[in-house]
Amino acid sequence: MTAKEEAQEENVIYVGNKPPMSYVLAVVTQFNSGSTEVVIKARGRAISRAVDAAEITRNRFVTDAKIKEIKIGTEAITNEEGRTSNVSSIEISLSK
Amino acid sequence: MTAKEEAQEENVIYVGNKPPMSYVLAVVTQFNSGSTEVVIKARGRAISRAVDAAEITRNRFVTDAKIKEIKIGTEAITNEEGRTSNVSSIEISLSK
Repeated sequence: MTAKEEAQEENVIYVGNKPPMSYVLAVVTQFNSGSTEVVIKARGRAISRAVDAAEITRNRFVTDAKIKEIKIGTEAITNEEGRTSNVSSIEISLSK
Repeated sequence: MTAKEEAQEENVIYVGNKPPMSYVLAVVTQFNSGSTEVVIKARGRAISRAVDAAEITRNRFVTDAKIKEIKIGTEAITNEEGRTSNVSSIEISLSK
C-alpha cells in the first residue's frame, strides 16, 4: 500500500445502523483534523443513511464541502451458511 | 416546457415502497421502448432501493447501460400538520 492509499483509507467513514448524526460527527471531525477529502461508504439499507450524513454535513456543518464523486456498485456477501447474496453499495466523496 | 424537457420527464422512474424488481421492470421497459436515458429518482429510505434497481438493471438486464450521473440532494417536505422536515433524495441517470 502506498502512502497515498494509506492516507485515503484513513479518510473513509463506514455508515452502519447508528443514527445519521454519529456519522456526520465522524465526517466533520475528519475535515477538522485537516483532511481535504472524506469518503462515506455504505451497503444495503444503510445507503440512505450515508446520503443523509453527506447532506447534513454539507448543508449544516461543512458548507464549503462539495460532492466530488458518487459511485454505486454491487458486492457479493457470503453468509454463515456459505450462501452468497448481492448487496448494493455507495461511495460518496466529499472534498473542500 | 420544451420538447426536450418533456421527453426527459417521461424517462423518470420514481422509486417507492414496492419490491426493487418492480422498478427494474419499469426501467427495462423504458429502455426497450427506445429511450437512451432513464432517470431513477427516490427520497428517504427508498434511496437504497433506487440503487438496488439501478444495479440489478445494469448487471442482469441492460448490461450495456452505464451510470451517466448520480446526484444527491435535500428536499423540504411539509406534513399534514404544516411542519417542515428535510429528506434526502437521489437521482441516478442510466444511459446506453
